[in-house]
Amino acid sequence: MKWITKITKVEPNHLVTRGYRQEDLIGKIPYPSVVYLLLKGELPSKEHGRMIDAILTACIDHGVTPPSAMASRVVASGDVPLPTAVAAGVLSIGDAHGGAIEKGAKFLQEGITRMKNEDKTIDEFAKILVSESREQKKRILGFGHRVHTSDPRTKRLFSLADELNIARGHISLSKAIEKELEIQTGKKLPINVDGAIAAIISDMGFDWRLGKGFFLLGRVAGLTAHVYEEQTEQKPMRKMFTTECEYDGSEERDLP
Amino acid sequence: MKWITKITKVEPNHLVTRGYRQEDLIGKIPYPSVVYLLLKGELPSKEHGRMIDAILTACIDHGVTPPSAMASRVVASGDVPLPTAVAAGVLSIGDAHGGAIEKGAKFLQEGITRMKNEDKTIDEFAKILVSESREQKKRILGFGHRVHTSDPRTKRLFSLADELNIARGHISLSKAIEKELEIQTGKKLPINVDGAIAAIISDMGFDWRLGKGFFLLGRVAGLTAHVYEEQTEQKPMRKMFTTECEYDGSEERDLP
Amino acid sequence: MKWITKITKVEPNHLVTRGYRQEDLIGKIPYPSVVYLLLKGELPSKEHGRMIDAILTACIDHGVTPPSAMASRVVASGDVPLPTAVAAGVLSIGDAHGGAIEKGAKFLQEGITRMKNEDKTIDEFAKILVSESREQKKRILGFGHRVHTSDPRTKRLFSLADELNIARGHISLSKAIEKELEIQTGKKLPINVDGAIAAIISDMGFDWRLGKGFFLLGRVAGLTAHVYEEQTEQKPMRKMFTTECEYDGSEERDLP
Amino acid sequence: MKWITKITKVEPNHLVTRGYRQEDLIGKIPYPSVVYLLLKGELPSKEHGRMIDAILTACIDHGVTPPSAMASRVVASGDVPLPTAVAAGVLSIGDAHGGAIEKGAKFLQEGITRMKNEDKTIDEFAKILVSESREQKKRILGFGHRVHTSDPRTKRLFSLADELNIARGHISLSKAIEKELEIQTGKKLPINVDGAIAAIISDMGFDWRLGKGFFLLGRVAGLTAHVYEEQTEQKPMRKMFTTECEYDGSEERDLP
Repeated sequence: MKWITKITKVEPNHLVTRGYRQEDLIGKIPYPSVVYLLLKGELPSKEHGRMIDAILTACIDHGVTPPSAMASRVVASGDVPLPTAVAAGVLSIGDAHGGAIEKGAKFLQEGITRMKNEDKTIDEFAKILVSESREQKKRILGFGHRVHTSDPRTKRLFSLADELNIARGHISLSKAIEKELEIQTGKKLPINVDGAIAAIISDMGFDWRLGKGFFLLGRVAGLTAHVYEEQTEQKPMRKMFTTECEYDGSEERDLP
Repeated sequence: MKWITKITKVEPNHLVTRGYRQEDLIGKIPYPSVVYLLLKGELPSKEHGRMIDAILTACIDHGVTPPSAMASRVVASGDVPLPTAVAAGVLSIGDAHGGAIEKGAKFLQEGITRMKNEDKTIDEFAKILVSESREQKKRILGFGHRVHTSDPRTKRLFSLADELNIARGHISLSKAIEKELEIQTGKKLPINVDGAIAAIISDMGFDWRLGKGFFLLGRVAGLTAHVYEEQTEQKPMRKMFTTECEYDGSEERDLP
Repeated sequence: MKWITKITKVEPNHLVTRGYRQEDLIGKIPYPSVVYLLLKGELPSKEHGRMIDAILTACIDHGVTPPSAMASRVVASGDVPLPTAVAAGVLSIGDAHGGAIEKGAKFLQEGITRMKNEDKTIDEFAKILVSESREQKKRILGFGHRVHTSDPRTKRLFSLADELNIARGHISLSKAIEKELEIQTGKKLPINVDGAIAAIISDMGFDWRLGKGFFLLGRVAGLTAHVYEEQTEQKPMRKMFTTECEYDGSEERDLP
Repeated sequence: MKWITKITKVEPNHLVTRGYRQEDLIGKIPYPSVVYLLLKGELPSKEHGRMIDAILTACIDHGVTPPSAMASRVVASGDVPLPTAVAAGVLSIGDAHGGAIEKGAKFLQEGITRMKNEDKTIDEFAKILVSESREQKKRILGFGHRVHTSDPRTKRLFSLADELNIARGHISLSKAIEKELEIQTGKKLPINVDGAIAAIISDMGFDWRLGKGFFLLGRVAGLTAHVYEEQTEQKPMRKMFTTECEYDGSEERDLP
């Protein structure tokens, strides 16, 4: 039995990742492009390299309120090593937190495939997808945000995708869905940052299965900062949150 | 009760990290420099920005054999979400895996402080530190490697630190210790990649408490690639390792 | 904003869990019955109490080969705190490892509901379910095992469920499916320990969503023992698995 | 290369743990006694079996306020699998949360060894230990609690240890320290539940390195209940804590 991997060859004094010697990559290829290399197997074009860098930065942090930052800080307060606390934050990246990138990218990628098979235009197909989702009472993920109505990260990412000539069908479909949602529901549900990243990585040719991976790769920077801030500026086991609590379980009782 | 943080201010349509609007950072400041900003509070100089980029890339991956890659792949084989499996790898970053960055940086930073207090030169103080460690039978961390005698990542990082004019007292002390170790022990114990990063981040003014953090921030890229490779090219619950096992516990017996 | 919970009321010198004072539970109610209380809200009958105790023991350990034990030992080898390493094992409990309890219980619980709605007998409905699964090429989870053809834990659990008069429709349906699988496929696919627990907790009235929970609650005992054995009998960063590795990625190449 | 373990032998249709066939343990030996067997290698006496059961129950839950319950619920709110969220809670079990069992047991075990070497009585040695800790300004762990002045769990555990004739030198030393602390500081610092467990497992002959393990093995029951309550009674990504937040970092600024 032996391992088989396409990622890194390890020999004494010789490390080869996706074909490239690590000493050639270090300090010569920007780290975000190395991330791209690791996930795709090839170095990005200059444009794709800049785009992946922007995506990582767009995921770095959203303050103390998301589950990931809270989990990291709460676990840090138990007085554990830094990586243990950062990992706790990573664990919270699930279907409801960062998950819209994965699900949104899957939706767009399957949408474009169906659109081509059914020989429709993007606008026609956006109409179909929004109608279907309304009939099935399923939310299309990546639209609307609990805090932002016009997320500055979304605008910046899309303008960069235009500037770098990366925008293709998935971004177009995403924007067409945004319009169609407003038409059919009468409500503005702007593409959020997860939705924007879902569309952009799809136009860059990434598998939707990596959706939560991109989010995670950017967010660990913020989580590390939160854990470090907690460890250096706060006491372990501090009163962190409201401890006001209503117990609405069984009345107090004796054992039978 | 409320949160107090120096990291990110979150308001509707307005995200400010360490003073900078996130839309200004995205695609304009390289992601590794944003990492620096998050951990230090200020943007790096151009030279420090390039150095931190190189450090992240130097940590990306070391094949399937370190505990972190193995843990991520083993957990992935239980058929769990990608972030759960990546987090498992992060958990293994401990005193024996990546820990030499933290411990090595602490040793160098305390060494330089003592050296100044005791008014010694770097060579004199390297001699003292090596003698002390031999008397106390304590290993100085960051020297020697289980696979590499001349780690290509170390050479590249140090030459870059020279080129960017980042090298200061901690790197000098580190190199003096390497020489002194050979003199006192008769064995070559070259600075390893952990030791090199320990010296460089110390010369860049980082707190040693962030040692495992830098390792983690680079290594998550490799871990994500390993989990993705496991999820897309292998079956869940595959026979992953040797299952040859010797049970050397109690003989089989009846309940008393 | 405040917490609302049915689990425990915390006041100075006064802890009430599911209505009972903790000092009344400690040492008077067996721990497995307290687990039942926590998950169901009421203390079990004597028979249910004994059954849940048996289920926890049936999950304790399966040697070093499952992902959970391997993950815990690998992470321990990075030299991290005991709970960090145990948690890594817990992370691997996924759809492919312990997941058959959850999925199997869901299948049986939905099966019994449909059976009643469609006014069928257990044998008739087992035939329908097996036929459907074969048409849809979906495996029914909880049958067959990669190591055991006649799992000693399964037999023991089922005989105890009979003895304690716990066996109801879900166990009957499970056994009818086992027979029907052999009739329709010509192969013996005996109920495995996950399948047995799935049927028993369903007959005890537990929600299938707790399936992985029962597995986890028993398995942490084995994981703690593995981490402790690793920490006390092995060195950190030891060569743990085969490191024989075939790199089948890109040929070594120069940067473009 | 092969595994060596004393825990479980796995052969087809044959599982032997610490010498006993698993089918013999299931439903015959109470689960807490099986935990004892896993950690110690031998089945407990009837008295030790009852004591370990009581210890597990004494650790089950302390409401939503400790880091472990909060971390589990916060991570669950990201919409992840149940074991992922339970594991997050386990991660928070650190030096400041549950850690007093480990550190307290180490302190008592080393204390008893020194006491015997120095040929002192328990009262004499308690005086020495308290004086030393005050001189070195080190807190003795396991005394005092942020909520309880007279913890009902502590009283119950100690009375059970008496009743079962388990109390030996470590419990005596612990009680002598409690008295001596009041004499030397003038303040009541009663033994807390962590301190009580530290003393009892020491009198039962357990290694202090297992301290966090016992806490973890009981607490997973409560964490599973919290995650299940969160998953079934709350929405993902709900507003969980106060989000009132003061940003006291850099003023907003333009990129240089």
